[in-house]
Amino acid sequence: MAEPLRIALAGLGTVGAGVIRLIEANAALIARRAGRPIQVTVVSARDRNKDRGVDLSAFAWEDDMVILGERADVDVVVEMVGGSDGPALALARTTFEAGKSLVTANKAMIAHHGLELATKAEAAKVALKFEAAVAGGIPVIKGLREGAAANEFQRVYGILNGTCNYILSTMEDTGRDFGNVLTEAQAKGYAEADPAFDIEGTDAAHKLSILAAIAFGAKIDFTAVATTGITRIRAADIAQADALGYVIRLIGMAEPGRNGDGPALFQRVHPHLVPVDHPLAHVDGATNAVVAEGNFSGRLLFQGAGAGDGPTASAVVADLIDIARGEIGAPFSVPVSELEALVPAETGHRAGRSYIRFMVTDRPGVLAELTAAMRDAGVSIESLIQKGRTEEGGEVMVAMVTHEGPESSVSEALRLLDGSPSLTEAPLVLHILED
Amino acid sequence: MAEPLRIALAGLGTVGAGVIRLIEANAALIARRAGRPIQVTVVSARDRNKDRGVDLSAFAWEDDMVILGERADVDVVVEMVGGSDGPALALARTTFEAGKSLVTANKAMIAHHGLELATKAEAAKVALKFEAAVAGGIPVIKGLREGAAANEFQRVYGILNGTCNYILSTMEDTGRDFGNVLTEAQAKGYAEADPAFDIEGTDAAHKLSILAAIAFGAKIDFTAVATTGITRIRAADIAQADALGYVIRLIGMAEPGRNGDGPALFQRVHPHLVPVDHPLAHVDGATNAVVAEGNFSGRLLFQGAGAGDGPTASAVVADLIDIARGEIGAPFSVPVSELEALVPAETGHRAGRSYIRFMVTDRPGVLAELTAAMRDAGVSIESLIQKGRTEEGGEVMVAMVTHEGPESSVSEALRLLDGSPSLTEAPLVLHILED
Repeated sequence: MAEPLRIALAGLGTVGAGVIRLIEANAALIARRAGRPIQVTVVSARDRNKDRGVDLSAFAWEDDMVILGERADVDVVVEMVGGSDGPALALARTTFEAGKSLVTANKAMIAHHGLELATKAEAAKVALKFEAAVAGGIPVIKGLREGAAANEFQRVYGILNGTCNYILSTMEDTGRDFGNVLTEAQAKGYAEADPAFDIEGTDAAHKLSILAAIAFGAKIDFTAVATTGITRIRAADIAQADALGYVIRLIGMAEPGRNGDGPALFQRVHPHLVPVDHPLAHVDGATNAVVAEGNFSGRLLFQGAGAGDGPTASAVVADLIDIARGEIGAPFSVPVSELEALVPAETGHRAGRSYIRFMVTDRPGVLAELTAAMRDAGVSIESLIQKGRTEEGGEVMVAMVTHEGPESSVSEALRLLDGSPSLTEAPLVLHILED
Repeated sequence: MAEPLRIALAGLGTVGAGVIRLIEANAALIARRAGRPIQVTVVSARDRNKDRGVDLSAFAWEDDMVILGERADVDVVVEMVGGSDGPALALARTTFEAGKSLVTANKAMIAHHGLELATKAEAAKVALKFEAAVAGGIPVIKGLREGAAANEFQRVYGILNGTCNYILSTMEDTGRDFGNVLTEAQAKGYAEADPAFDIEGTDAAHKLSILAAIAFGAKIDFTAVATTGITRIRAADIAQADALGYVIRLIGMAEPGRNGDGPALFQRVHPHLVPVDHPLAHVDGATNAVVAEGNFSGRLLFQGAGAGDGPTASAVVADLIDIARGEIGAPFSVPVSELEALVPAETGHRAGRSYIRFMVTDRPGVLAELTAAMRDAGVSIESLIQKGRTEEGGEVMVAMVTHEGPESSVSEALRLLDGSPSLTEAPLVLHILED
């Protein structure tokens, strides 16, 4: 058998420890499939003495993780440190400068610095792989980059954040409100102590920007992702969606667009109403799922665990097996020099249906005011419901679903209502996922 | 840009023509992703003059397809002829003898001759790829061979035949009976004029044997797949399953087993009751889906179009892109010399729940006879229903669901009832898919 592929592992949190466990547990079959053993030779983390539940005694220890790639006993560096900048980025740069490959689960770093790093990897003719950065253990990067590589993609979308999906599907199952379920999710470890990164959609946006770059041959542009989280979703919205035949899911979506005559790229993370007969409507808990629509493949669905040490380690080691087999290739499917710089697509002309929810003071004429604004903006209402009738002057919810029309009309209607004393909070607009 | 990858295409049916259309339609993006153009240089089929809706004038024509691989203007042969033996097999052999790579959608040929062909491909250090042979456009071979390659697989199962799934889900939606829906499926082109290959499970068994070989590192053994089709499923079975919270799907399933102290491989194609909250319960129409359970990844689901010229062409050209990128690798993930010869797993001790449906003469004592046989064989009944009460002496259906127990007990119960004059046809046993 060929020489082992020698791994330096930076970062020994739960995922880093999971990688060590996987490489040990499945060593024999990995060697058979990769054609050579995959061996951790050296590790590095902040605290050498912390107990991580894995035996590190067989590995060298390096205090300065940034120089891991420079060691003679290392072929590939696995970066499990996290953070878009700082030590993770420094490590990635020095690794490529040393002519070694890098595998990472670091979606923030790829979203912010993926182009620079891919350029360096390509110049050094080494691998930069990040399957674990998107949708945990689901091989969706490989699915887009290789499995569906023959297709022009028409749209890529999916459920990219397990925390949000856990919260939304638990709200759906229990009828409980957002804050209540978030607190429970934190207690169970499904949400971080500081959950903003997840529940405000940033994490999903990182992942979406990576998928979009690969699918559409675009220079990665995280800042162009229009991002809305799930913090404003109420139990009443979920109940109303249910009554209409939908569930609510946080969907990241990317597709090609045109601004005038020029090509553009649409990237958005936003809560959507998903029809109950759509495969994504059955994605519950912390599960992730990605749909890719190819011009020949049709609709492909990839689904599985979106996080956790086991699934993440599975994706990291799949990347290592690729490298052991000699599969290097362009990180974003085409060389960086051929990626297009696509401007963000204007969205006003996008046609679609929307769910619009108002919280209003319960008094005569409010409904007339809302519907007049819709009429004046050219928004056609498919259905409307008023919930929670109270004594005069209390707060009620008015939820409507529009017929298909341009998004700009909905924006215009909300502009007409802006500042109205009838509204007790800003209206909530959710898009309806169309097949 | 590098030299083009030159393709010989054997077989110009709908799928072969689809490959030509795809390579033309997506030529620019394929060249960017593959790092070099992919060009058809020569084609071959039985009838040179048939109109196939694609322009063949730019390609050379070869009357004798078996020598395509020997041509100097060919790097890869794409075999779209079909049939496990005959010209397809002859072509595959001569292609490897000529030191060229082969891409095929031919599940029957791989199921029957995959080991021989992989051995020849490995000896010649060329590629044998067959993504299109399993589950159409879904990149599930790549998913198992690469995307989830870090895992020991605990079980692989799925919906592998679009014709059967179309028939079963249409029966479910309409309440119509098997024969009626089959006739419609034939009229619509979802079933062949001679549908036996699909509806008796052979096609699914071919695909399962390929997945099992890759997932479990086993020498492919199609003859070891225990195969039952869907011809005996009645509308009443589907209605009864629905009442119990299940749908009926034809499931191909493989998992490691043990016979005594020795390793074995379980491979079965059989209609199953699938709980409505399982992802496969929502796979309707001609869609395929495969679940792979890895010891680190957890449950992965791959879903999409299982057939059709577009999806099949997508998978074929993905294989070509892999080859253009230099990804050759072992066809069955590990070299043929390291594949294990695994005996078929004995199934008697397998624990599970079953749905058993009897058609019986409606007369006193029949139910007592059935339940006594269950008792004597040690089968515990979870629920039982008698449907279609008629005048004395008519035919009624008795459907029961067992508690978990060994399959051998159910077989024993049916043996005790064998030849009973109460039974108007052989009992039908469906397994219940467990999470």
